Amino acid sequence: MIIIGEKISIIAKKVREAMNSRDPLPIQELAEAQWKAGAHFIDVNIGPAEERGEELMTWMVQSIQKKVKAPLCLDTTNASALEAGLKAHNNEWGKPLINSTSNDPERFVMLELASKYNSQIIALTVGKGGLPADADDRMVIASEIMARAEELGVPMDDIYLDPLILQVCTTQNQAKHSLNAIKMFGELGMKSVVGLSNISNGVPKQMRSLIDRVYLSLLMYEGLSAAILNPLDKELMDVVKTTDVFLGNTLYADSYLEM
Amino acid sequence: MIIIGEKISIIAKKVREAMNSRDPLPIQELAEAQWKAGAHFIDVNIGPAEERGEELMTWMVQSIQKKVKAPLCLDTTNASALEAGLKAHNNEWGKPLINSTSNDPERFVMLELASKYNSQIIALTVGKGGLPADADDRMVIASEIMARAEELGVPMDDIYLDPLILQVCTTQNQAKHSLNAIKMFGELGMKSVVGLSNISNGVPKQMRSLIDRVYLSLLMYEGLSAAILNPLDKELMDVVKTTDVFLGNTLYADSYLEM
Repeated sequence: MIIIGEKISIIAKKVREAMNSRDPLPIQELAEAQWKAGAHFIDVNIGPAEERGEELMTWMVQSIQKKVKAPLCLDTTNASALEAGLKAHNNEWGKPLINSTSNDPERFVMLELASKYNSQIIALTVGKGGLPADADDRMVIASEIMARAEELGVPMDDIYLDPLILQVCTTQNQAKHSLNAIKMFGELGMKSVVGLSNISNGVPKQMRSLIDRVYLSLLMYEGLSAAILNPLDKELMDVVKTTDVFLGNTLYADSYLEM
Repeated sequence: MIIIGEKISIIAKKVREAMNSRDPLPIQELAEAQWKAGAHFIDVNIGPAEERGEELMTWMVQSIQKKVKAPLCLDTTNASALEAGLKAHNNEWGKPLINSTSNDPERFVMLELASKYNSQIIALTVGKGGLPADADDRMVIASEIMARAEELGVPMDDIYLDPLILQVCTTQNQAKHSLNAIKMFGELGMKSVVGLSNISNGVPKQMRSLIDRVYLSLLMYEGLSAAILNPLDKELMDVVKTTDVFLGNTLYADSYLEM
């Protein structure tokens, strides 16, 4: 499974301060730590970045890729900042990933950028109509996004469908709907992705990791292709590796947790 | 899911010594601890018990049910010891469970006892031919056992089909076959059970609990009805409770782990 390291986010105080003072070191350290822990992509969440977004994203991409030879997941609602990031991205380390488009026409610009810069893209199965009710609803929205992507010349293989994980503590039945959606996306031959920690949002802090771990294992069992998560959470990564053994993706060896 | 507490086993030195000296206290304490931790059945494994098996099983059943108001899972290959246990069992706390029959004609006596004493029974999907190769093989064996059970008057609802969990470290692909078998048993309307810790047999000790936890969650997702496991392993029980939240078997509350 593809791991997208989530730690470089404007939500984290340390990251925000480093962004504001243009201090690359804390950001580079976080990128390297996640990469060494097994992340295939490093997410770069700069928020809406309404002021100087283009310059910030360019600086972030260059600072991180100076340190790690990994593709980045560019995460902002600001399309021009995103485009600046795509221009700065070193595709030698792999195609970048745009986070994200949806079925809201205001977000189709992200599909256009994916097409223009030969980038991969995360497509949230939400539209203008609000949150999806169940797996079928997610499939309908996914089909609409796929049709629009085809028009714009984005290959299906470059799209990761995201069922939108909702918090289990307030919308418990959605956990099953998202599992079903992951299965249905796979049956369509489409890739899938989740923002894992959404599942435990709002839950007492000491229970979050357990809830994330159990849910991730079930998602993987339904064929999940990628997850945005914290690769520095060793217990979580151990569950990923163990599930991969049961799925036959990894050959069992006594040392499989160290690989 | 039905939890069958596995701790009262002749394999454990403390239990074996208590059995040999007919000291009820250590056994009663283990029974009570498992019951309080959420076990629905207490497994009573006295081994082959070739000498004085009837008297031992009778003493075990009476000692345990003096302390806990739970039905027992009677676990021995000695049919006359097993029958003595069924006679001694207090069915006020629920029907007993026989562990186990299989498709080996020598084990059909256990089905006869289940019929005679209105007991539930675990049916291992193995036959004289040796280990099952895959899920289909397990289904064929299950059908043969079910046909025999019907002849002997054991209701299908009293049978727990056991796919026989094999150790992942030497027979990795069997982990998926057993998951598929659990799903197929459920589709037939049959109950299922596993001896969970078999999956991590032979694995370095510090990894066993992790492997058990991840596998149990996947088994539950496929519809597992019951598991023989260690209910005193809090991390394992927390995974059971969390999986039950995702399956919708438990209503989410911040305190769900304490229930």
